[in-house]
Amino acid sequence: METTEVKFELSKEFAERLQQAVNERDEAFIKEALDGVNPADITETLEEFSSEDSRYVLSLLDVEVAAEIISQLDEDTLKRFLKVYTPQELARYIEVIDSDDAVDILNVLPNDVREEVIASLSNQEKVDYILDLLRYDEDVAGGLMAKELIKANVNWTIEQTIEEIRRQGENVTQIYAVYVVDDQDILLGKVSLRKILLAKDGTLIKDIYDDEIIKVTTNTPVEEVVTLMKKYDLDAIPVVNVRGKLMGRITIDDVVDVMSEQADEERQLMSGISEDVEEDDSIWVLTRARVPWLVIGLIGSFFGAEVIRQFEGQIAVVPILASFIPLITATGGNVAIQSASMVVQSLATKSVFQESQTKRLLKVIAVALLNGLLLALLAFTLSYFMRHDLRVSLVVATALACVVLLASLSGTVTPILLDKLGINPAAASGPFITTANDLLGLAVYFLVAYLLL
Amino acid sequence: METTEVKFELSKEFAERLQQAVNERDEAFIKEALDGVNPADITETLEEFSSEDSRYVLSLLDVEVAAEIISQLDEDTLKRFLKVYTPQELARYIEVIDSDDAVDILNVLPNDVREEVIASLSNQEKVDYILDLLRYDEDVAGGLMAKELIKANVNWTIEQTIEEIRRQGENVTQIYAVYVVDDQDILLGKVSLRKILLAKDGTLIKDIYDDEIIKVTTNTPVEEVVTLMKKYDLDAIPVVNVRGKLMGRITIDDVVDVMSEQADEERQLMSGISEDVEEDDSIWVLTRARVPWLVIGLIGSFFGAEVIRQFEGQIAVVPILASFIPLITATGGNVAIQSASMVVQSLATKSVFQESQTKRLLKVIAVALLNGLLLALLAFTLSYFMRHDLRVSLVVATALACVVLLASLSGTVTPILLDKLGINPAAASGPFITTANDLLGLAVYFLVAYLLL
Repeated sequence: METTEVKFELSKEFAERLQQAVNERDEAFIKEALDGVNPADITETLEEFSSEDSRYVLSLLDVEVAAEIISQLDEDTLKRFLKVYTPQELARYIEVIDSDDAVDILNVLPNDVREEVIASLSNQEKVDYILDLLRYDEDVAGGLMAKELIKANVNWTIEQTIEEIRRQGENVTQIYAVYVVDDQDILLGKVSLRKILLAKDGTLIKDIYDDEIIKVTTNTPVEEVVTLMKKYDLDAIPVVNVRGKLMGRITIDDVVDVMSEQADEERQLMSGISEDVEEDDSIWVLTRARVPWLVIGLIGSFFGAEVIRQFEGQIAVVPILASFIPLITATGGNVAIQSASMVVQSLATKSVFQESQTKRLLKVIAVALLNGLLLALLAFTLSYFMRHDLRVSLVVATALACVVLLASLSGTVTPILLDKLGINPAAASGPFITTANDLLGLAVYFLVAYLLL
Repeated sequence: METTEVKFELSKEFAERLQQAVNERDEAFIKEALDGVNPADITETLEEFSSEDSRYVLSLLDVEVAAEIISQLDEDTLKRFLKVYTPQELARYIEVIDSDDAVDILNVLPNDVREEVIASLSNQEKVDYILDLLRYDEDVAGGLMAKELIKANVNWTIEQTIEEIRRQGENVTQIYAVYVVDDQDILLGKVSLRKILLAKDGTLIKDIYDDEIIKVTTNTPVEEVVTLMKKYDLDAIPVVNVRGKLMGRITIDDVVDVMSEQADEERQLMSGISEDVEEDDSIWVLTRARVPWLVIGLIGSFFGAEVIRQFEGQIAVVPILASFIPLITATGGNVAIQSASMVVQSLATKSVFQESQTKRLLKVIAVALLNGLLLALLAFTLSYFMRHDLRVSLVVATALACVVLLASLSGTVTPILLDKLGINPAAASGPFITTANDLLGLAVYFLVAYLLL
């Protein structure tokens, strides 16, 4: 962080000094040390602390700052921290944060604690907001939106609108625009703060608002919200119900978080890690996340061993055959992963101008034939040069070309099928496809060997 | 898009109808059809058109809209389109877009055309902006920032600031905040539009501005800009030079684009695709992107074949050995990719609280030993059950445990080394690591077989 000039330099030394102050319950030092520090930096520091110690530190801070810190904790730490709080304490924090963050916290609590927290809230509007948001799944716009926003009736004047901003301003962390609604709260459009700032006194909202507004409904999938906000460079998007009534808004920072999560999930699927783990999780958690796919791969390989077993007689006669097994399996795996990854990418950037399925498949086959031919030629040359055995070289080259073609097809079809089944298609780029292709490759290789030798 | 209620429904039919109108040079139809359509939708449609046709369509639109569309084109299409424009035409469009987008367009032009375009610009301020931005690399904050922003002198009143917003407002697409500077243009802080809106007449900026501002310097790496904006939930970040002078600003939409590019690049590295290609690129481009890593994998496999060759005598005697080759190579590859992926993830979310290198390595070894033991036990049981050969089962289990340990280490060390060398560590999760591990695994397997049989 040396080039960023953030005022507070987060460091291990600072965390250690703070921990010492916490041990000594040195209230004055802690308050002074954290004064003016960005909540995001305090969050990162507290994630290293015990739940009791962090609770003590938070109790010394402004309730707004403490609440913001809690709402930024990663899910694992949050779960651990929340255990030491009473529902009443939690209610105090939840009272002062945006409804979307409040719901994220409530969602990690056991049902009974959650209800106690809600019962302890004194702000009825917040309770209504929270109860509304709790109805939505996490993977639709309703589950991502916040209820806090600034809206103005289309018939208001600029002065009335500014008064509303003054009144609501405190509850709304970041104002990107004022949403314009009719008497039934139906969303009509928006007006930017700049326009309000530059408008003459007495101007009516209806004369200056922009009625071309991109919106989503509460049941729009989160992936689509991300795509829309990226495509149209939006910093916030309003959410309406099926009747067009303004229900909430989603801000770009939430979409950025979703994008990070999507990237992490894809990376984990592609590498066969079955839980959301990080390097600093426990040895047990890390093993639990990694072993399942390794075991599946292992069992797959035993099926592969059975395939090879059928040809053991052949191997005993022509032992060179064994030496090209890794060539076949590795190339098959590499080709399948490449193909799957291409499909995953185009599924992520769906366009109405996508080529038709038939055209796509024909192209996949064309690329596979070209790649297969090039690799087969190279393999033939190398193996002939190495072993001077024309027939074995021919077997290797032929099998390789077939494997490239089959792996291209399976790598293309698998993610499309997974996507249709509602499974993240990136799973197709993981150990699953390499395991399946090993089996396919081995069968093809020895079949070709059996036919040609 | 059926749930999004965007006014304009992008469709293949619309694109075809538009193409027909273009063929007939039906100016009236085109103008009416595209009136009020979001430029991002027109961009997507035009990417399917020929360069000459799109040039014709753009010539019918407002110069601002046309310029925005050009600035949104993907790089391949942009390169193709730009060939049919004269430098003077390009200058007309570049004149009306933000300096960062202008530089992105200029960067894909040949040097001589670029200079001609700049010479044709009539707005001297824009020329200065562009010449300044062209000095920076694409991978630092200076290369990502726009020069257009609203700044206010700390000694100004609210009225002076509003006047400046009115004057500059047209040039600045999205105002997130007004930056506050001193007489030497040194960045002091910022003031939100909301504060300006709610301030009483005659208030001085110095009395209301926020001096705690997160900023970066022109040479801050883009990755760090992304990390900061994510961590602090920023919608814009000011960029200063080494002396603290305000040079530009980076907005969240640019960071979102960078994040998408990073995710694409990582996916491509992990799957051994060596160029930024998409499914709808030509067969030749797709082959060129895929063959290099396939060839590297193939050559690696021939080294593997040489390793196995050394043990051909053994295989001829105990042909069962051949059947477990895929088990060894597949497990080694899976373990290495898991390990590499864990490291890539923690490199992406660097924290000052990262465990020390020694502690990390010890943990990797502990997880590897635990995984290796579990897999070895399972493999022993399965192979004994299949073959009833105690010695071969022992060889397989022992080799597997060793391979898991070695693959964990190589999977952990490789991305760290790549990162230190300035190479994207995600490359370690690609075909490179599986190829290297195949060699390692085969050597270990046959060595163990040689020693134990």
